Amino acid sequence: MARGKLRRLVYDQLEPTARKGRLSPTNRVIVVLVIIAAFTVIFETEPTISAGREPLFRLFELLFGIIFLVEFAARVWIAPDSPRFAGKPRPRLSYIMSWNAIIDMIAILPSLFAFADGSSIILRFFRILRMVRLAKLGRLSRAWRHVTQAIHSRRYELGLTVAIAVAAMLTAGTGLYLTEAEAQPDKFGSIPRALWWAIVTLTTVGYGDAYPITAAGKVVAGVVAVIGVGLIALPTGILASAFSEAVQKRSASDAADKED
Amino acid sequence: MARGKLRRLVYDQLEPTARKGRLSPTNRVIVVLVIIAAFTVIFETEPTISAGREPLFRLFELLFGIIFLVEFAARVWIAPDSPRFAGKPRPRLSYIMSWNAIIDMIAILPSLFAFADGSSIILRFFRILRMVRLAKLGRLSRAWRHVTQAIHSRRYELGLTVAIAVAAMLTAGTGLYLTEAEAQPDKFGSIPRALWWAIVTLTTVGYGDAYPITAAGKVVAGVVAVIGVGLIALPTGILASAFSEAVQKRSASDAADKED
Amino acid sequence: MARGKLRRLVYDQLEPTARKGRLSPTNRVIVVLVIIAAFTVIFETEPTISAGREPLFRLFELLFGIIFLVEFAARVWIAPDSPRFAGKPRPRLSYIMSWNAIIDMIAILPSLFAFADGSSIILRFFRILRMVRLAKLGRLSRAWRHVTQAIHSRRYELGLTVAIAVAAMLTAGTGLYLTEAEAQPDKFGSIPRALWWAIVTLTTVGYGDAYPITAAGKVVAGVVAVIGVGLIALPTGILASAFSEAVQKRSASDAADKED
Amino acid sequence: MARGKLRRLVYDQLEPTARKGRLSPTNRVIVVLVIIAAFTVIFETEPTISAGREPLFRLFELLFGIIFLVEFAARVWIAPDSPRFAGKPRPRLSYIMSWNAIIDMIAILPSLFAFADGSSIILRFFRILRMVRLAKLGRLSRAWRHVTQAIHSRRYELGLTVAIAVAAMLTAGTGLYLTEAEAQPDKFGSIPRALWWAIVTLTTVGYGDAYPITAAGKVVAGVVAVIGVGLIALPTGILASAFSEAVQKRSASDAADKED
Repeated sequence: MARGKLRRLVYDQLEPTARKGRLSPTNRVIVVLVIIAAFTVIFETEPTISAGREPLFRLFELLFGIIFLVEFAARVWIAPDSPRFAGKPRPRLSYIMSWNAIIDMIAILPSLFAFADGSSIILRFFRILRMVRLAKLGRLSRAWRHVTQAIHSRRYELGLTVAIAVAAMLTAGTGLYLTEAEAQPDKFGSIPRALWWAIVTLTTVGYGDAYPITAAGKVVAGVVAVIGVGLIALPTGILASAFSEAVQKRSASDAADKED
Repeated sequence: MARGKLRRLVYDQLEPTARKGRLSPTNRVIVVLVIIAAFTVIFETEPTISAGREPLFRLFELLFGIIFLVEFAARVWIAPDSPRFAGKPRPRLSYIMSWNAIIDMIAILPSLFAFADGSSIILRFFRILRMVRLAKLGRLSRAWRHVTQAIHSRRYELGLTVAIAVAAMLTAGTGLYLTEAEAQPDKFGSIPRALWWAIVTLTTVGYGDAYPITAAGKVVAGVVAVIGVGLIALPTGILASAFSEAVQKRSASDAADKED
Repeated sequence: MARGKLRRLVYDQLEPTARKGRLSPTNRVIVVLVIIAAFTVIFETEPTISAGREPLFRLFELLFGIIFLVEFAARVWIAPDSPRFAGKPRPRLSYIMSWNAIIDMIAILPSLFAFADGSSIILRFFRILRMVRLAKLGRLSRAWRHVTQAIHSRRYELGLTVAIAVAAMLTAGTGLYLTEAEAQPDKFGSIPRALWWAIVTLTTVGYGDAYPITAAGKVVAGVVAVIGVGLIALPTGILASAFSEAVQKRSASDAADKED
Repeated sequence: MARGKLRRLVYDQLEPTARKGRLSPTNRVIVVLVIIAAFTVIFETEPTISAGREPLFRLFELLFGIIFLVEFAARVWIAPDSPRFAGKPRPRLSYIMSWNAIIDMIAILPSLFAFADGSSIILRFFRILRMVRLAKLGRLSRAWRHVTQAIHSRRYELGLTVAIAVAAMLTAGTGLYLTEAEAQPDKFGSIPRALWWAIVTLTTVGYGDAYPITAAGKVVAGVVAVIGVGLIALPTGILASAFSEAVQKRSASDAADKED
């Protein structure tokens, strides 16, 4: 019975939906640890910071690996208490097969290799997998629900405006390919190359690595830029207003939650 | 009688407005084929992808040409069943003279030259005509109607803000021509040249191929940029809200459609 | 009496507010001429277009000069019929002293010098004065009223957000001056120089002629860019919504106009 | 008694909240002086302006130093009249310990060193502290209240969208680090370096000092730019609408103020 009580206590500490209001102290500690762990990964990649401090970074990594392994084990242990897995024949196995658990495992895996040397691409990719831990933050927050709600409620407009944006990019790229391919074959010599220009231009980033130099190309690019920039901004505007709406509905749904 | 039934069946499969709800299986296949055909054209232009694979690309092209030719012939055949052409004396000829059919023919034409060699500008332009097929997607979707509705409902504001944006660009270009022409005659030596700078700056693309270097030019450009960037964003904001409105009206009009 | 009738007729043709609905045929011709005249000025400045065609451009210029002089004389003549000047002791002199007339005179003046040679700065400035004619378009359109209304109705928000934007720019410029002045004295060696960077960055133009190269400068610039770009966009958003509102009120006010 | 009356008069002139409507003449003079003083600091840093005019700038600086010192002393003197400090045991000391007073003191301090020579970093930083005076403007305006209200009323959405923006930047930076580190180790060789690229790209500034050159990098950067630019714009949109709302509530609250 004591074990059931303990598990119930751990469940209350770890499960973000267990409490209606704020996060439990344990989950807050996990949030802080995830952020520190992410910064450790970020700074470890910068040679001017990590050079000579490799043992320190490995120690940190080992520490985070152990903590998140313990957290993962605890979450597996409490799975039978979760309403989502309690009804299933093997609740713990069901949990392990869930997206949340798979992401956790992917993020823990690289810690085992913390002491491996070298800087090969595969090893780099492997180490960077630890950044996946940041996905924990989304899971601990109810906010993520508002984002997915916002996208879902306006999926038709978003899909349509994204299609318009893609069409604008294809048209822009094709137009510049036709007018500039002769003058700058390395930058506009094919539609995929011209598409890089189109993306960089229509998002208004404009690195300056590719731009038209012929008069015809500049006229086409000028017209395309003025129209295209407006079309590319459509999905952003729709997403922003959808998001605002989804959050405003939150108060109402929160109020309903509290009445439960 | 069997022939009339078959034509009715083909009509039901090809005409996007024949069914109230989703696209017919045939039209879905056409959508997928159009997208694949577009990617084929895009990748064919890139030498690092198409080099040595020309025969494969030509085969694909021939295939798409035949499919879209058959589709075109079928659409001509079913024209008498369409409410839009049924009343006219020669429904099939009327269909062939419609914009949709003309675009289809323009897009089929280049396939006949799939086996022609060379990379002259004319041939390149001709091959790129196949990208026009993407216009089929717009036609198959009811979404296009919302876009044109959105533009039409706010044509006054859009026209006015576009006029303001053009005036801002002319003023910006003239201002920089006056202040920078002496220092950088190749970039600001005439108003058309300065207009390229104005477009690149006011759309906030900012390639960095042209920018003022004199103190006077920088002051004028700074003031112009801060004010102009805001004015250029006006049509985008209006288009986004008009678009949002047009889609929200959709639900109502869809509901009315279903009651028919 | 015939003279009064003729003047009334000319008034009806020239005065944009004389007719409730669309522009009179004469005013439409003027709009087209103003646009053609502006393009003439623009293309005249481009040597690759105007070289060898100077006499043609001068002829055009002379023609436009005469037309707009006649138009100006006609507007002076009809001033007593205008409700705005009719009540004053000397209606024609009052009109000549009005902003509209002064702009007209400024734009006509350079035509007298159409045959002057050379490309000195003063002459260039003088010739470009003809671009002022574009202001005629604003006057002929009721649209301008909506723009000024929009700005006026939100002058408080616009003033406040512009102040925030200026503060953001000053803070950004000062921050980069402190961190980058040592490393790049020619680009960040003083606050005015750093302000050029701040304007180019916060409007998101980003030419790439000035950017931080030190770690401290990049951190400050990164924080400043993320926050500042949002603040700079505030006036644009407010202007867009104010403009939308002003135009929506138009229908109501137009309806009221028609009832007069 | 005369002293109390004088203090009351000074309070009415200096305290921005003492009058419901506009600023007092004294405060308006201070606003103008603060702006002139800021421009003096800005132009002093530019060698082409200040060279040879150092004594003039020092004189100005001394003048501003004395004026703002007198203003500060006056504000300390009238502290007992302020409802905010009147109830406290030592109202003047309480005022000196308030944020407003501390900012004033920080801004006055550098004036004492106006005659110090040299251009060391510390001295430069010290001189630039005078820019802090601009904070006086915020305090004198009720507008600042609306900005903080706007941020506070939407703190949840702003926090969430800022978190999404940070996540987008981290993902973008990590993605480019994985694909471009080999090809451009100086620009993408670590996540912090790639984050500089991510900030410059997702804010759409796009200096052009860092951009992907490999095909993989361009594909990742293209996808990331299109999605990320939209996500980065979310907080701006929410802030703009929150700000608009806060100002619209102003009229109501102002009306209530006047009824007091």
